[in-house]
Amino acid sequence: MCRLAAYLGPAIALEQIVVAPTHSLLEQSQHASEAKLAVNGDGFGFAWYDQAQEPGLYRDVLPAWSDGNLPSLCRMIRSRLFLAHVRASTAGETSRVNCHPFSHQSWSFMHNGQVPDIQRIRRRLEAMLPDDLYALRRGTTNSELIFLLLLTSGLSEDPASAVNKVLDILIDQSRYGAGKDAVRLTCVFSDGQAIYAFRHASDDREPTLYLQAGEGGAWTLASEPLDGDVARWDCIEPDVLVRLEPGRCSEVKLSTWSSVASPGSRQEAVA
Amino acid sequence: MCRLAAYLGPAIALEQIVVAPTHSLLEQSQHASEAKLAVNGDGFGFAWYDQAQEPGLYRDVLPAWSDGNLPSLCRMIRSRLFLAHVRASTAGETSRVNCHPFSHQSWSFMHNGQVPDIQRIRRRLEAMLPDDLYALRRGTTNSELIFLLLLTSGLSEDPASAVNKVLDILIDQSRYGAGKDAVRLTCVFSDGQAIYAFRHASDDREPTLYLQAGEGGAWTLASEPLDGDVARWDCIEPDVLVRLEPGRCSEVKLSTWSSVASPGSRQEAVA
Amino acid sequence: MCRLAAYLGPAIALEQIVVAPTHSLLEQSQHASEAKLAVNGDGFGFAWYDQAQEPGLYRDVLPAWSDGNLPSLCRMIRSRLFLAHVRASTAGETSRVNCHPFSHQSWSFMHNGQVPDIQRIRRRLEAMLPDDLYALRRGTTNSELIFLLLLTSGLSEDPASAVNKVLDILIDQSRYGAGKDAVRLTCVFSDGQAIYAFRHASDDREPTLYLQAGEGGAWTLASEPLDGDVARWDCIEPDVLVRLEPGRCSEVKLSTWSSVASPGSRQEAVA
Amino acid sequence: MCRLAAYLGPAIALEQIVVAPTHSLLEQSQHASEAKLAVNGDGFGFAWYDQAQEPGLYRDVLPAWSDGNLPSLCRMIRSRLFLAHVRASTAGETSRVNCHPFSHQSWSFMHNGQVPDIQRIRRRLEAMLPDDLYALRRGTTNSELIFLLLLTSGLSEDPASAVNKVLDILIDQSRYGAGKDAVRLTCVFSDGQAIYAFRHASDDREPTLYLQAGEGGAWTLASEPLDGDVARWDCIEPDVLVRLEPGRCSEVKLSTWSSVASPGSRQEAVA
Repeated sequence: MCRLAAYLGPAIALEQIVVAPTHSLLEQSQHASEAKLAVNGDGFGFAWYDQAQEPGLYRDVLPAWSDGNLPSLCRMIRSRLFLAHVRASTAGETSRVNCHPFSHQSWSFMHNGQVPDIQRIRRRLEAMLPDDLYALRRGTTNSELIFLLLLTSGLSEDPASAVNKVLDILIDQSRYGAGKDAVRLTCVFSDGQAIYAFRHASDDREPTLYLQAGEGGAWTLASEPLDGDVARWDCIEPDVLVRLEPGRCSEVKLSTWSSVASPGSRQEAVA
Repeated sequence: MCRLAAYLGPAIALEQIVVAPTHSLLEQSQHASEAKLAVNGDGFGFAWYDQAQEPGLYRDVLPAWSDGNLPSLCRMIRSRLFLAHVRASTAGETSRVNCHPFSHQSWSFMHNGQVPDIQRIRRRLEAMLPDDLYALRRGTTNSELIFLLLLTSGLSEDPASAVNKVLDILIDQSRYGAGKDAVRLTCVFSDGQAIYAFRHASDDREPTLYLQAGEGGAWTLASEPLDGDVARWDCIEPDVLVRLEPGRCSEVKLSTWSSVASPGSRQEAVA
Repeated sequence: MCRLAAYLGPAIALEQIVVAPTHSLLEQSQHASEAKLAVNGDGFGFAWYDQAQEPGLYRDVLPAWSDGNLPSLCRMIRSRLFLAHVRASTAGETSRVNCHPFSHQSWSFMHNGQVPDIQRIRRRLEAMLPDDLYALRRGTTNSELIFLLLLTSGLSEDPASAVNKVLDILIDQSRYGAGKDAVRLTCVFSDGQAIYAFRHASDDREPTLYLQAGEGGAWTLASEPLDGDVARWDCIEPDVLVRLEPGRCSEVKLSTWSSVASPGSRQEAVA
Repeated sequence: MCRLAAYLGPAIALEQIVVAPTHSLLEQSQHASEAKLAVNGDGFGFAWYDQAQEPGLYRDVLPAWSDGNLPSLCRMIRSRLFLAHVRASTAGETSRVNCHPFSHQSWSFMHNGQVPDIQRIRRRLEAMLPDDLYALRRGTTNSELIFLLLLTSGLSEDPASAVNKVLDILIDQSRYGAGKDAVRLTCVFSDGQAIYAFRHASDDREPTLYLQAGEGGAWTLASEPLDGDVARWDCIEPDVLVRLEPGRCSEVKLSTWSSVASPGSRQEAVA
């Protein structure tokens, strides 16, 4: 499990999300309160946009709290749209190529969750990638793979459709009806114009994701409220693809996989 | 605060202390139970001895749990005497030169605790070092400085006397009667023949340190019982310098500073 | 291109190969004299064997010359059989998962050379791996892939046959007759009992590899003579799989691909 | 020895100095042509200014060429004034605290050169620092120490006077008349408004430093011409403190130490 945050609105310094708040992402890297693991010390990263189409990317394997460069970069870099992530790997070596966010062309992507039996189904999922996206694979995380599958499924043309397709694939491949472990995904991604986010879990225990509107049409997303005050944030509903633009929040109900869920079984996850 | 462990006895693989036990040092790096901070992720290190006089030293800034080399090194390296440490820095950048253990010639040293106002008194303490030891200073930790002060105070000739002198210096310089914060030290060090350890606190809250005898005259020291069972370990008494050799444990009462403590105020710290 | 060295014989400290000689592997990391690039600063690693079947593995992304742990580890670790490698990556991010040696069960493997168009043919090569070896893939190097292909091709049963098969695959896939770039491989690997080595190039410019016999039936392999004196070392012949055991050196001519080389075209590469 | 570059003028992306030119600082990190060492792979760093008084700082121990974050940061970060540095340490462990630039409040500083016997005289130099600057010392480089001595000597009030004082101190302490090794310094520093630079050597072999005027009143400084064309750059004269502001270059002859140099002995160093 990991912790993540994202911002869209009038340009601000990254530190206003990552460092400064009472329960900032940096604080959540050491003292997460709504995750299975309180510590997210297996690397961190952020992607940010300015005028250029392609985002900047900074990732390192150190815990966010012990990287001496992070406070300086977050103080100096101002951005109108950025994603930030602190990682808690469940297994395997910590490596920069396994740190979030991942990026390709104008897209950036980060993820919090689990795909059961990923080692068993990884090969089949990778086989679905076209050659050019296959060649981009750098690490071994399920997260990078989900991102490449989204790109494969037409993320640039129709994000909701791409998400539906990839959820179908993951659910089908991990056969969550049979296995004991659930598919749980909270994904946040951007093309530099809008931020997209969704939560899904096969067992109704989606990783949390909160939304807050700010001044100037700004939006902030975070795994846990940055001010520690749940009352001032909205929960992102499960199985809805949220699209955030300056001053505007639109939603698309995710649907293709809905037939496999038992009717009436879906409830708001306890955050 | 930090967590530490040390071993002396028939040669064993480091992993038997660092990795394998239920509540191993590696486990304590993520889930310490008797420390202010549960996470000790600001670097780690170990020093180990074989036939040569000078110990080997391995230190890195990654959390112990995310260093891919650590399990392999701890599985392969066998030693008759070694010290291991996981660090939780209270302030400042994580850097290899600030990771424990520190070593000089045949000595190795590690520390868990705090020296109040260290930034204010650092200069005066460094001024006490002779030129050759001053030149060895690599980082900015109070721990490295305590080690150099011990060497300055005749550690090789009379360890108990050196410890007494350094405690006097620290207590005097940090004026613990006036300040709000206490001097608290748990130190473990070795010359490759014996392991020395002591605990001291100006407020009777010494960081914990447990001792267990093993087969073949072996001794294991650890901040927290490696098997999680306090009943099978002894607490190291405060203000006693313990000297461990194969099959033998001797003690020297530390004394020079005792006059400054209020009579009757000293009690066994709750571990 | 990279530089590598390996040793088999009475146990010695790794530093006797890696650090101490005039033109040690460490020296070659900064001042290689027989390679396209004089500097091999993109990570390093070594694998070593003791009584256990599985080798120890230590790898890092720093240049060998700036890793403070390397001198200490190489001074303390003694081994009867070890492989060591300094890397010069031609492209891509430096990452531990891309550092040599690679290991699996009792095998360790390292490589110096190039496979043209590896990005284009990587997918087809990976498709040849059985599921269990596919799951072991951690990085994106052609070297790790060659190792997994060797394991796939029966390395444990018949090393020469496995090498022949993999050379056939690489030559076929990279179609070296048509492309401009040549396949060039110098590989050194071990199962903990013997060291195997071969050199192959589709253009007769195999990366150099030297062999020297030592006392007690010892063997040392190195990309460049460790004492700087070519006269005291033998060149490993191209297209021969050398097998080194204590006091014994045997050879198998590699053959399956020979028909595709122009008759009479093969000459000893200028080192 | 190291390589460095600095820029002042209309805001540009750092990559225009650090990455893009034919003989960029990144290129100089691997293939320096006017330095004793061709490779500067022992860490790198840059300091940059925007509206805030305090510069941003990014430093890492990896070689500049193998840090995956560097290209992205240099592409995204635009600045009107920045300093960049690639390090070749002559001795000791590579550590972030020893990487340039160093910064304090509005000042940033970097250095290329040598101070003979620095280990012998370090203590006396550190004794000259006032308590607050002494407390800032993080590493063990002569470079950080020179910076703190400049701050001690009134850098903010009168830069030329501060440089004269520090040169006097270094020359006196290192007794360059008697020793075999020379004091050689090329320093570049900034308060966020102007860039200052000077070269000094006790043996007339000052490390090179070139200056080029650009459009919009811009100035670029570099150890070696970024376009590889010496004819298009001016050499910074030795023993002159150059002050660069937008569209303006002023000079102050450094003088206090001149009496100790033999009359007539000073000549333009061969770059």
